[in-house]
Amino acid sequence: MVPSPPNSLSVLLHSHHPPVPNVCPPSINPLWFTQRSPGFNPQVEPSFLDSGWQTFIFSTCSPRPLIFFAGDKAWEEHSEMWMSTLARFARPVFQRSPSPVVCKAMKACRRMELRAPSFCMTPVHIRRHQTLGSAPMPVAAHSMRHVRALDEERLMAVEWEDGGQSLYPFTWLRDNCQCPRCTLQSAEARLLLMADLDIHTGMDSVEVTKDGKVSIVWPDQHMSVFDAEWLKKRCFSDAARQAMQEELFLNERYYWDATLHIPQADFQEVLHDDGAALAWLLALRRVGIVHLKGAPAEQGQVARLAERIGYLRLTFYGHTWQVQDKSMANNVAYTSGKLSLHTDYPALHFAPGVQFLHCINQAKEGGESEAVDGFHMAEQLQREDPEAFRTLTSLHVDFTDTGTDYCDFMLQSKNRIIDVDSEGKVTRINYNNATRDSVLDLPLHQVQPFYRALRAYVDIMNRPENVVTYTMKPGDIVTFDNWRLLHGRKSYISRPDRLRHLEGAYLDWDEVMSRLRIVRRNVHGDAWASDKRSHLHRKI
Amino acid sequence: MVPSPPNSLSVLLHSHHPPVPNVCPPSINPLWFTQRSPGFNPQVEPSFLDSGWQTFIFSTCSPRPLIFFAGDKAWEEHSEMWMSTLARFARPVFQRSPSPVVCKAMKACRRMELRAPSFCMTPVHIRRHQTLGSAPMPVAAHSMRHVRALDEERLMAVEWEDGGQSLYPFTWLRDNCQCPRCTLQSAEARLLLMADLDIHTGMDSVEVTKDGKVSIVWPDQHMSVFDAEWLKKRCFSDAARQAMQEELFLNERYYWDATLHIPQADFQEVLHDDGAALAWLLALRRVGIVHLKGAPAEQGQVARLAERIGYLRLTFYGHTWQVQDKSMANNVAYTSGKLSLHTDYPALHFAPGVQFLHCINQAKEGGESEAVDGFHMAEQLQREDPEAFRTLTSLHVDFTDTGTDYCDFMLQSKNRIIDVDSEGKVTRINYNNATRDSVLDLPLHQVQPFYRALRAYVDIMNRPENVVTYTMKPGDIVTFDNWRLLHGRKSYISRPDRLRHLEGAYLDWDEVMSRLRIVRRNVHGDAWASDKRSHLHRKI
Repeated sequence: MVPSPPNSLSVLLHSHHPPVPNVCPPSINPLWFTQRSPGFNPQVEPSFLDSGWQTFIFSTCSPRPLIFFAGDKAWEEHSEMWMSTLARFARPVFQRSPSPVVCKAMKACRRMELRAPSFCMTPVHIRRHQTLGSAPMPVAAHSMRHVRALDEERLMAVEWEDGGQSLYPFTWLRDNCQCPRCTLQSAEARLLLMADLDIHTGMDSVEVTKDGKVSIVWPDQHMSVFDAEWLKKRCFSDAARQAMQEELFLNERYYWDATLHIPQADFQEVLHDDGAALAWLLALRRVGIVHLKGAPAEQGQVARLAERIGYLRLTFYGHTWQVQDKSMANNVAYTSGKLSLHTDYPALHFAPGVQFLHCINQAKEGGESEAVDGFHMAEQLQREDPEAFRTLTSLHVDFTDTGTDYCDFMLQSKNRIIDVDSEGKVTRINYNNATRDSVLDLPLHQVQPFYRALRAYVDIMNRPENVVTYTMKPGDIVTFDNWRLLHGRKSYISRPDRLRHLEGAYLDWDEVMSRLRIVRRNVHGDAWASDKRSHLHRKI
Repeated sequence: MVPSPPNSLSVLLHSHHPPVPNVCPPSINPLWFTQRSPGFNPQVEPSFLDSGWQTFIFSTCSPRPLIFFAGDKAWEEHSEMWMSTLARFARPVFQRSPSPVVCKAMKACRRMELRAPSFCMTPVHIRRHQTLGSAPMPVAAHSMRHVRALDEERLMAVEWEDGGQSLYPFTWLRDNCQCPRCTLQSAEARLLLMADLDIHTGMDSVEVTKDGKVSIVWPDQHMSVFDAEWLKKRCFSDAARQAMQEELFLNERYYWDATLHIPQADFQEVLHDDGAALAWLLALRRVGIVHLKGAPAEQGQVARLAERIGYLRLTFYGHTWQVQDKSMANNVAYTSGKLSLHTDYPALHFAPGVQFLHCINQAKEGGESEAVDGFHMAEQLQREDPEAFRTLTSLHVDFTDTGTDYCDFMLQSKNRIIDVDSEGKVTRINYNNATRDSVLDLPLHQVQPFYRALRAYVDIMNRPENVVTYTMKPGDIVTFDNWRLLHGRKSYISRPDRLRHLEGAYLDWDEVMSRLRIVRRNVHGDAWASDKRSHLHRKI
């Protein structure tokens, strides 16, 4: 696809931490953000503003909406360079906008420019991206100038009115015919069997219809019709695929350290308002931790929150579980002792993706909560001690958990402490020193290197500059990414009459992301509907 | 560890299929089995005998018990070579045994030997293995002749009475101190923090105590005591680790094709008898599919079966789900159409590991069930078309599932059609053509190779010699490995007054394996207790 002009850009910065390589990966600069973080939902801002995060989202080719949040004082002091860069870049668009919020933004920009007029800017190259989760940014619907079959290559070429070109393999087009014989409309699922797909099919004819769709007749006279927008979104170019994947999975993360102001949202609002729920879930995905405030200080609230998503994940510790100091504790969490930084449940091969912890009673003394960004710590380890990183991303470690709770259990698992995907990207941390098994399935010569590597990782996560510490109050619910964060608590002494009491629940990311996609659709209306096969025109 | 004499060997053969490379991987011969399938639980035999499977388990250095199941007629006709080989090998042990079952076995062996006296046997080298899931085979408890610290290497060396030697790193020993300060006994979990572990520790002294344990004093005068059996099982030699891993995870699989006689068990017995439950779960793990007979033909039975394990896995299709022909079906399964071979739920990143399907009403016409061994098919693909195998084990494919059932959902996932571990071993099949997304995140040049590879795999699984076909009757429950099997059904016509009706439920392998370990411990008594930290002497 020939590159076409950018239509959006967003940047997220933390007010109390100017961009430095240690905090934002891998080199925080406008180029990085524009290439890797094209979308960030403005709905998230109300909670971020409270906690010191700032997001800029603006569009360079769309008349509306332009959203700009001026930084608070602390931010302004640290971030002149950013403000200046962004202001200059955005100005041509801003100046054409009648929006009051943009006027406010412009005012802030001007102030910044005056304060840092001579700052030398890096050229910013922006790629076209689907801005995932951002507000609808109406762009002219994609229409086709021309379509033709390249019979030799078995590709269909679409030339777009805006000058780009997309290529689609015949096989893929036939495979994804949207007619009622090939697709069960009620389930949006493929009926066409793989055994019936001619993977060497030709194409009898192809044309653009009067209503701007592509109509194909296949050699057996079967006919397929494809919507222009539907095709555009499925363009096989790197940029289009990258945008689609970011829309579907929101894999971009914002790393943090001890200076993080944990994003907050209101428990009741999250339960009852899709906008608030979207803000919560986006922050949970991007930052990995969000505090919900204002829940009743009684059991049952994490279950309500799980119902808001869909359903919770039952485990051997029950539907929800009570973190208290118990006699004959079947888990180290059920004592009053210190819990070192850990992820929950690495004794499962698929640990719960998301955890909710609701404070019902707090301790008289101690019991402060701690958290670190495990992905960020892994990145630090990779930089400081590549050998240790290689060790923890390659060796499989045994975990075990035996006891009785919801019922009796004897769990065993093998997990890598730092799990990576096939491209080496960190996807999950699996580490709980309490349930790491005495069975260690390594040849003798790998044992000491394993301990050395694990110790190096633990030492990094225990550095004061990396650990966020907070004290939960009755009614607070901390929601966090259990695949990414390591959490712990200090030892405590309870009030004689009231035990420290947290109630917890687990969910999985697939279900949480499903709810995120649904509330995003609800918030952004039909034009943003993610019914991918619905033939609705989606604005890109 | 110096090799010591073997103590057990087991072999599993199918009566209606003499060993050929196409059916049993990778080269079915005594050597292969002794190296790779050292344990198979005799408890499973009652159900296997019905379906044509035979297992031989015998011990070459233990006085009891020797278990031997004579083949049925069909087996004997095909398997003279095996019987002869096994009989000759086992004879010295058999002859010393007073067991009636061994007498029966010997009789069968003699008959075989007479019929194939001149068969030339391959020398059989047997390695020492923990026989997982087999009946307890009492061997003299391991006792230590001598223990010493190799200070330079920071290793502790144990010389065993039987002549072997094991080495244990100081760090690992200190890390796994079993004292109440270092281990929370009630949870069998480590209290010692990684930050407090000296990974360069020395050892002040080490000795064998009067009661045969290892006692270590560390430089800070902390003392650790280890049981001999506990240490022996955790020996770092390849053989000991392999045996332990097989005991923990039972990863060995028996591959099959269309000739499979599906193992059967009685529903009520499985619910109420641990021996029957163990037989069921072992066959489910090793073979991947078991029919349970005799369930009431009414809803609720798969939930009862899931409770027998622990709990079922809730999904967006509900706690359990009703497979019927529904109007506005939200899934292709909820029609009367043909379902091509598929795994369930690849639109989740962690598809359910185990599936139960209970027949309540069968169709008037059609509706036969089909199944193939996806791991076996993957092996065939790898042999016949290595390029296609590489493609399906490396490319990530998008799946999608959108609709409303338990609640509304918009699922998206990326999975490899043939999932492999870091060593290239197939661990899970993810393939449902209905929910394979029209979004295909591949560069253009990989699209056609992907279709070619997928078609090659599908063509292999559709070969008549690979597909097992069966018709479920009301009261039948098929239980199968959803990570391994692909299943389908033929289209059907229901009786006008009674819809075809199956009820289904999902579970995960971690929970199923947990129950398997527990019933194995129950069946084999305390001596076989898998309480790994309990210091009970476990007989190896």
